[in-house]
Amino acid sequence: METTSSVVIAVALLAVSATGFGDDAQLLRGAAEVRDQALAENRAYETVAGLTSEVGPRLAGSDGDRAAVAWAITRLKALGFDRVTTEDVSVPRWERGTAVARIVAPFPQTLATVALGGSIGTPANGIEAPVIQVESLAELKTLNRAQVEGHIVYLPGRMQRSRDGSGYGIAVAKRYGGPVAAASLGAVAVVIRSAGTSNARLAHTGATTYIPGKPRIPGFAISNPDADLLEYQLATGRSVRLNLTSTARSLPSVRSANVVAEMTGKDPAAGLILLAAHLDSWDLGTGAIDDGAGVAIVTEAARQVRLAGVPLRTIRVVLYANEERAVSGANAYLQAHIEELPRHVVATEADLGAGKVWRLSARVNEQHWPRIKDWMPVFQPLGIELGNNESRGGADIAILGRNGVPFVSLSHDASNYFDYHHTASDTLDKINPGDLSQAVAAYSALAYILANRKDDLGRVPTAANTR
Amino acid sequence: METTSSVVIAVALLAVSATGFGDDAQLLRGAAEVRDQALAENRAYETVAGLTSEVGPRLAGSDGDRAAVAWAITRLKALGFDRVTTEDVSVPRWERGTAVARIVAPFPQTLATVALGGSIGTPANGIEAPVIQVESLAELKTLNRAQVEGHIVYLPGRMQRSRDGSGYGIAVAKRYGGPVAAASLGAVAVVIRSAGTSNARLAHTGATTYIPGKPRIPGFAISNPDADLLEYQLATGRSVRLNLTSTARSLPSVRSANVVAEMTGKDPAAGLILLAAHLDSWDLGTGAIDDGAGVAIVTEAARQVRLAGVPLRTIRVVLYANEERAVSGANAYLQAHIEELPRHVVATEADLGAGKVWRLSARVNEQHWPRIKDWMPVFQPLGIELGNNESRGGADIAILGRNGVPFVSLSHDASNYFDYHHTASDTLDKINPGDLSQAVAAYSALAYILANRKDDLGRVPTAANTR
Repeated sequence: METTSSVVIAVALLAVSATGFGDDAQLLRGAAEVRDQALAENRAYETVAGLTSEVGPRLAGSDGDRAAVAWAITRLKALGFDRVTTEDVSVPRWERGTAVARIVAPFPQTLATVALGGSIGTPANGIEAPVIQVESLAELKTLNRAQVEGHIVYLPGRMQRSRDGSGYGIAVAKRYGGPVAAASLGAVAVVIRSAGTSNARLAHTGATTYIPGKPRIPGFAISNPDADLLEYQLATGRSVRLNLTSTARSLPSVRSANVVAEMTGKDPAAGLILLAAHLDSWDLGTGAIDDGAGVAIVTEAARQVRLAGVPLRTIRVVLYANEERAVSGANAYLQAHIEELPRHVVATEADLGAGKVWRLSARVNEQHWPRIKDWMPVFQPLGIELGNNESRGGADIAILGRNGVPFVSLSHDASNYFDYHHTASDTLDKINPGDLSQAVAAYSALAYILANRKDDLGRVPTAANTR
Repeated sequence: METTSSVVIAVALLAVSATGFGDDAQLLRGAAEVRDQALAENRAYETVAGLTSEVGPRLAGSDGDRAAVAWAITRLKALGFDRVTTEDVSVPRWERGTAVARIVAPFPQTLATVALGGSIGTPANGIEAPVIQVESLAELKTLNRAQVEGHIVYLPGRMQRSRDGSGYGIAVAKRYGGPVAAASLGAVAVVIRSAGTSNARLAHTGATTYIPGKPRIPGFAISNPDADLLEYQLATGRSVRLNLTSTARSLPSVRSANVVAEMTGKDPAAGLILLAAHLDSWDLGTGAIDDGAGVAIVTEAARQVRLAGVPLRTIRVVLYANEERAVSGANAYLQAHIEELPRHVVATEADLGAGKVWRLSARVNEQHWPRIKDWMPVFQPLGIELGNNESRGGADIAILGRNGVPFVSLSHDASNYFDYHHTASDTLDKINPGDLSQAVAAYSALAYILANRKDDLGRVPTAANTR
């Protein structure tokens, strides 16, 4: 770390001195100092190690979820936040139970599977039916009931790997929409190829959806190697029968909480900046990259700014409840803070793992966008490039954007993120401490700028943000 | 494949014409042709795809094991072998059942675990005890009974990754010897860090051993991420308690079989060459790299040689039973063929996955070793270097070596092999078809030389091979 920091500091000073910052020169010099202070020493890894090793899985509404809230309160106080509070959130509760998938014919084999999040279970003796492979939801819509009825629909779409993680949005369509679409044609269950890039024999969970009043059938994901195996057998042209069992079930909603903590700014009239991550996780792994890393990054960024002095604006960290299943915390936060919304000068969210940050983008009022480009000398030494002004924010802050709050966003390198995300392998060892420190430095510098810059970033058209 | 093949052919012809082969020039030219013929087209991937997708897991004595023998007979006949026979092998039978490991205190979490192969189970209500971390078997021997008694012994040794796979031999010592050593000091169970390099949350199985008349305790492996988690909690200095449950059990031995198939040579007096792989696999994956790849490679090498014409010597492929738990097939083969042993001119074994071959080594009578160097122009175009004359052969042919039979061995690149080996992730997708073809080409060329070379490779001192 020491060597790396020294190099970065040298490059950064050069960059700052070689460009004219105009009015913001002092601000950006301060940001560069906070960046390098964070690179030299930060407690983010310690934070995520604690959350994953002492709490671990924390599915909304579970014992782990409650333990995580208690852990977060203790941790945030220890990190020096001024105010640490919780805000009630009602969360739908779901239990995974056990899932078993077996090829019964033509060549019997057991497949590594998980229930899709929120799925109903099967009857106790399971579901056994022939499999029909349907390439996409679009193709499924072209089929008629006679072709699908009584079958298990298998959706094989494979996620493509990329730095920006854009393949995920495509791959999850079948996970969200598969059960409803197949049920409408009389299918008895849906099996999808995991919406992830892992070659491990661990299936990828994540939420599926039902529509009130429409038929519900169970949804399963099988791992990529198991999808290959199933497709091999289907490709023989022989009838393939699957037997599926799942004890997944929904239970009455329970109370969870958003954890809200602040580093109070000098000027109450200057409003606040909101740093978001989510405290809940799926139940299979220990939630290290999703989103223990985000929790560690945003709490540490706030701390790093405060270490450099009391900021102009208050920095509010919100660790949201139940992002994974229903963004319950985000909805509850908006309701609770709707009157206070004008004080929210800007929001940023960390929920794409612990990879190096490679891009800075935003969603600010167009007249402010050119000013953001001036910040790049602070970020370029970290290898970060300028994106565009079309950031979607993140799952938890999206609703703030739809209500006019601007975003500034940092994109993590997500090339390997979907090898682990939403699987049992989302564990601490997937976080590279050096990459995490780079991300903490980037968020710290950004938070410093946002919290100390005199001007705000305007409001964004609410229509534009609802797309 | 076509492009690659053309390049290799060009390089190979150059190499052959630029060196003086002496008496063997024609032989080596033929070997180069077989090599390139195999590179251009071979059926090895098809073979391993069939074995893994149609049979899958085939633990000795299981239904899968029987299905594999039937599959192999059909497949070998289809590939054109002259004689396809089975030879009875008695195999010890063991069932894994289910294994659960939970940290009870200080921070409850469930760990991904498997029973070590051959381990006894736990009482139905499990074993719960405090954990003592012991760095190695050597350190365990320095402890006294009072320190260990009533504890679960945790052995953390981490396998080192390398091209030659040499880290495995070190890492498995704790797996083989841990339960006996810990039981002798009154431990109630042993938990090891998986003897593999995977970062997936899948534990690595493999055989453990007991000593008749000595105390037996159950053995478990936990995945590398779970080992990190356990070590984090142990490092807090607080007492760590584990709860372990396993329904593993041994059953009476059953009959399995070695599958033996030949491409008959021209001259019965010239003896035979033996190409070895093992047909059984562990039960967690589908046995693609261990050892479906070997099965595919050696059967295809024999076929490629035969495609070029009837060889001088008979090529005997032996697909051994139960390599994994007790090399039962190797022992049975020796007993059944002890009289015929002098006819075994040389043996080679493929049991290190489907990675590219990078080294040719041997264990032949010293006076023959210099001649093997002359073969390298055939192998160098494949990127294969010359090793030494100290090959250990492989698990199944080692016993032949101890009885004087020479080896010539090809080493696969094992850098990634132990990411999948003995885990649920040992599946077809881990085989790169291009790498597999390179290996098939290497084995085909080697088999051509060994089967057609007039001179034999002598006998090796039996004492030297027992080390």
